[in-house]
Amino acid sequence: MYVIGERINGMFKDVRKAIQECNTEIVQNLAKAQLEAGANALDVNVGPAAADATEAMVWLVQTIRQVTQAPLAIDTTKPEVMEAGLAEAGAGSIINSTTGQEEKLTVFMPMAQKHKAAIIALTIDEKGIPRDAAGRTEIALRIVASAFENGIEDMQRLFIDPVILPVNVAQTVPQQVMDALREVRLLSDPPPKTVLGLSNVSQGTALRSLINRTYLVMAIAAGLDGAILDPMDEELMNAGITAELLLDKQVYCDDYLKAYLSSVKSG
Amino acid sequence: MYVIGERINGMFKDVRKAIQECNTEIVQNLAKAQLEAGANALDVNVGPAAADATEAMVWLVQTIRQVTQAPLAIDTTKPEVMEAGLAEAGAGSIINSTTGQEEKLTVFMPMAQKHKAAIIALTIDEKGIPRDAAGRTEIALRIVASAFENGIEDMQRLFIDPVILPVNVAQTVPQQVMDALREVRLLSDPPPKTVLGLSNVSQGTALRSLINRTYLVMAIAAGLDGAILDPMDEELMNAGITAELLLDKQVYCDDYLKAYLSSVKSG
Repeated sequence: MYVIGERINGMFKDVRKAIQECNTEIVQNLAKAQLEAGANALDVNVGPAAADATEAMVWLVQTIRQVTQAPLAIDTTKPEVMEAGLAEAGAGSIINSTTGQEEKLTVFMPMAQKHKAAIIALTIDEKGIPRDAAGRTEIALRIVASAFENGIEDMQRLFIDPVILPVNVAQTVPQQVMDALREVRLLSDPPPKTVLGLSNVSQGTALRSLINRTYLVMAIAAGLDGAILDPMDEELMNAGITAELLLDKQVYCDDYLKAYLSSVKSG
Repeated sequence: MYVIGERINGMFKDVRKAIQECNTEIVQNLAKAQLEAGANALDVNVGPAAADATEAMVWLVQTIRQVTQAPLAIDTTKPEVMEAGLAEAGAGSIINSTTGQEEKLTVFMPMAQKHKAAIIALTIDEKGIPRDAAGRTEIALRIVASAFENGIEDMQRLFIDPVILPVNVAQTVPQQVMDALREVRLLSDPPPKTVLGLSNVSQGTALRSLINRTYLVMAIAAGLDGAILDPMDEELMNAGITAELLLDKQVYCDDYLKAYLSSVKSG
């Protein structure tokens, strides 16, 4: 399970405050704690409140780089903020994200190639988010084609995100996304990776952690490779690790949770 | 999720003691507690230690019947114990279990028909437990045919159990069982129900509850209809209920866990 830690995001109060006050300690502690908890990469999002988004992104990346060289997922819809973040974060970064819209693909795919970055692509196009799995898969196919056209032939660098929505308002979507996860695996050989912005499934619900971890397990069983999530939610991580154990992706031992975390931390 | 509570089983110390001492209170409390926790039916197994298995089964069923009319799954491999248990438990009972072996089917299928009972059938035949999903599905097909031959045409009365094994010794089996769960749904229209003896997946492991609930979620996503499990494991029940919510089998409300339990208890 490729875990992108979601906590360095200006949507969270502590991070917003840290950005406003240039408090490096809050950001660095969040970086270290997420890696300690099993994150493979760290999402970096300045949030909606930053006065100058580019400046805030550069500060965040520089602040994180003082404590870790882990891959960073630069999370913004703005090309100029993305460009600045990637330049600062260095090789092995992740663009988070493009969509399947032509105007986005023509900007972000060449940017991924220029910076030797991986790229997350949401299955959204000019008509919005498809209702069903087939619509998601169709957009994913266009995204794969665009990646190849732009020289991104290593499918380890392309993450398709089939866009999960909150279960309390879109109750048929979790099943459609699982079907899409299975279908995306058939698009190319080897197939692109898949990823989800997991916590969206529980947005606005009363039992967020339970819903997040239950859906993570279901999605992993449907072939999900990675997720943007809070690795400090220990029960969530344990559920994901156990799902992979049950799919024979990790050798059983009584201490398999610890063994997993050790293997992540040792790179 | 059709939950068959597993706790009234002579393999557990408290139940073994209750049988030996004819302590009705222990058994009746376990019956009530499991139903309170969301069980739809109760498994009844005298365990290996009972001096006279038929006598012990009749006593257990009579003891439970003093406090509930819930369906009972008479759990024994011995035809005479099964017959006595079914006679005592009354209509709506469940035979737990036959296998796909011809000599078992010819005994238990007619017995199910005679007692208007449902029947659980394990995908095991003369050659043992198949290694893969296809082998399980093949035996399931023979079981479905045998049910029809014996007049059991209502597939609500037939539960196929594709036999999960402990993950610590058989790590590829969880995936094979999920594939079998999907394939069994295609055997007939409507298909037979599916069920698992869930806790077998974690036998001998260090983190039993975590492994049980993680596999329950994965199996439900693969189409599992029911399970023999411990309903008093609250996290396990919450995981199963949440999996069904995410599959749109229950309408979302903030109190969906309580809503589920209320609907089970009101029948």
